[in-house]
Amino acid sequence: MTKHDTITAALLVIGEEILSGRTQDENISYIAGSLDRIGVVLSEVRIVPDGIAEIAGAVNSLRQQFDYVLTTGGIGPTHDDVTTDAIATAFDTPIIEEHPHALQAMRECFPGEELGPSLRRMARVPEGAELVPNPISGAPGYMIGNVVVMAGVPQIMRTMMKSVVRRLDTGKRIASRSIRVDAIEGDVALALAGLQAEHPDVKIGSYPYFEPSGYGTYVVLRSTDADLIENAAEALCSLLDNHGTPYAEADAGS
Amino acid sequence: MTKHDTITAALLVIGEEILSGRTQDENISYIAGSLDRIGVVLSEVRIVPDGIAEIAGAVNSLRQQFDYVLTTGGIGPTHDDVTTDAIATAFDTPIIEEHPHALQAMRECFPGEELGPSLRRMARVPEGAELVPNPISGAPGYMIGNVVVMAGVPQIMRTMMKSVVRRLDTGKRIASRSIRVDAIEGDVALALAGLQAEHPDVKIGSYPYFEPSGYGTYVVLRSTDADLIENAAEALCSLLDNHGTPYAEADAGS
Repeated sequence: MTKHDTITAALLVIGEEILSGRTQDENISYIAGSLDRIGVVLSEVRIVPDGIAEIAGAVNSLRQQFDYVLTTGGIGPTHDDVTTDAIATAFDTPIIEEHPHALQAMRECFPGEELGPSLRRMARVPEGAELVPNPISGAPGYMIGNVVVMAGVPQIMRTMMKSVVRRLDTGKRIASRSIRVDAIEGDVALALAGLQAEHPDVKIGSYPYFEPSGYGTYVVLRSTDADLIENAAEALCSLLDNHGTPYAEADAGS
Repeated sequence: MTKHDTITAALLVIGEEILSGRTQDENISYIAGSLDRIGVVLSEVRIVPDGIAEIAGAVNSLRQQFDYVLTTGGIGPTHDDVTTDAIATAFDTPIIEEHPHALQAMRECFPGEELGPSLRRMARVPEGAELVPNPISGAPGYMIGNVVVMAGVPQIMRTMMKSVVRRLDTGKRIASRSIRVDAIEGDVALALAGLQAEHPDVKIGSYPYFEPSGYGTYVVLRSTDADLIENAAEALCSLLDNHGTPYAEADAGS
């Protein structure tokens, strides 16, 4: 993959339990933050059920549109874990039923234990994939083409993600600055539209908040160029000063 | 729309701030739960940035695949709120710039206040849409074709969702039963695969958990027929009894 300024990724969350409302997803914001820190722009997230057709369809659509596709979930030992079958279908590639390095990693995690047929299922890996280590329970994730396949259990996904971010091409990191404005969105909307027009290379987002302590608007300035953010932030602050609207730095960003 | 046993929906979350990792989504699990309670099967979730092309593309793809599409976000007063433009693009329909009922609802929420041009932007509604009331801040959501457009602010989305669920066709409610098994997934995987084969009309899901108090597996049985769930649950419990594996009811479902 050639280096370019913007590297994009999509995340495919495989999980019936999130779609049914049984479980609140914990992985999206962690992965979004990890990618943001290495300058990879998370451009789409999809959540689909544990079905081969649904997963393979989404993978094939997303891997053509984005530089990377990360998936979470569906690589466990049970009958409803069909992600590896779906990835093999998407890439039209056979599955190595007992990948020797995967089996070895699992044996090292459970020394002296017999690995039954269910656990061995977790050593199934599509041909041509490179393993992603899992120090917690051995059974690895993998990377095939521009697709990274990870576990859905948050603790395991996080250890996998730590080694995945070191393998991805990185883009220019997007810096951000967030300012809390003590005014409703409608009262600052025109000023923000003008500011956006004058600072086209800074993405200006506005997010209303309603908290017990009061309500207002977070204005978030984002750009790969920190100087441009500072210019836009100064312009915003003098606009607010002129209108007598209170504001405060919300977080430093970086 | 004709009545059928299974009614499906997709959710489109419009939010740059979730993709950047700045904000944790709070809406998906609420909407998933609300749909589950009226027997509508949430079949896919997508999160896309605040761009007209991205939103319109996703809406047009999803509204052909599912009975309903619900969207959240991007209908505020600021320049980065482009959902209504995207919906009008997707449906190739003009926008009523100041929908009289929308304006009236906003005036009733802020009696005596002048509605400036930014707030009036929230009265923009695609032609042919029916309004969804917003008792909190007046500015309505709307329904056009099989697409429901709601605010992204969780408090406002929730009040909109309460009236939306009364307008949707409802399906057969999916009942569920959840059993916590004190064994790792690998140790129950074969038994569950056998159970699934014997009870094809019950969807048997298995979700490992790793908590400070210990680890194990949640087994979730789901079906539109509660009797079938009971049969499968009995079979599961006697399998576990025979193997001396401890388990407990995890939640009642219904």
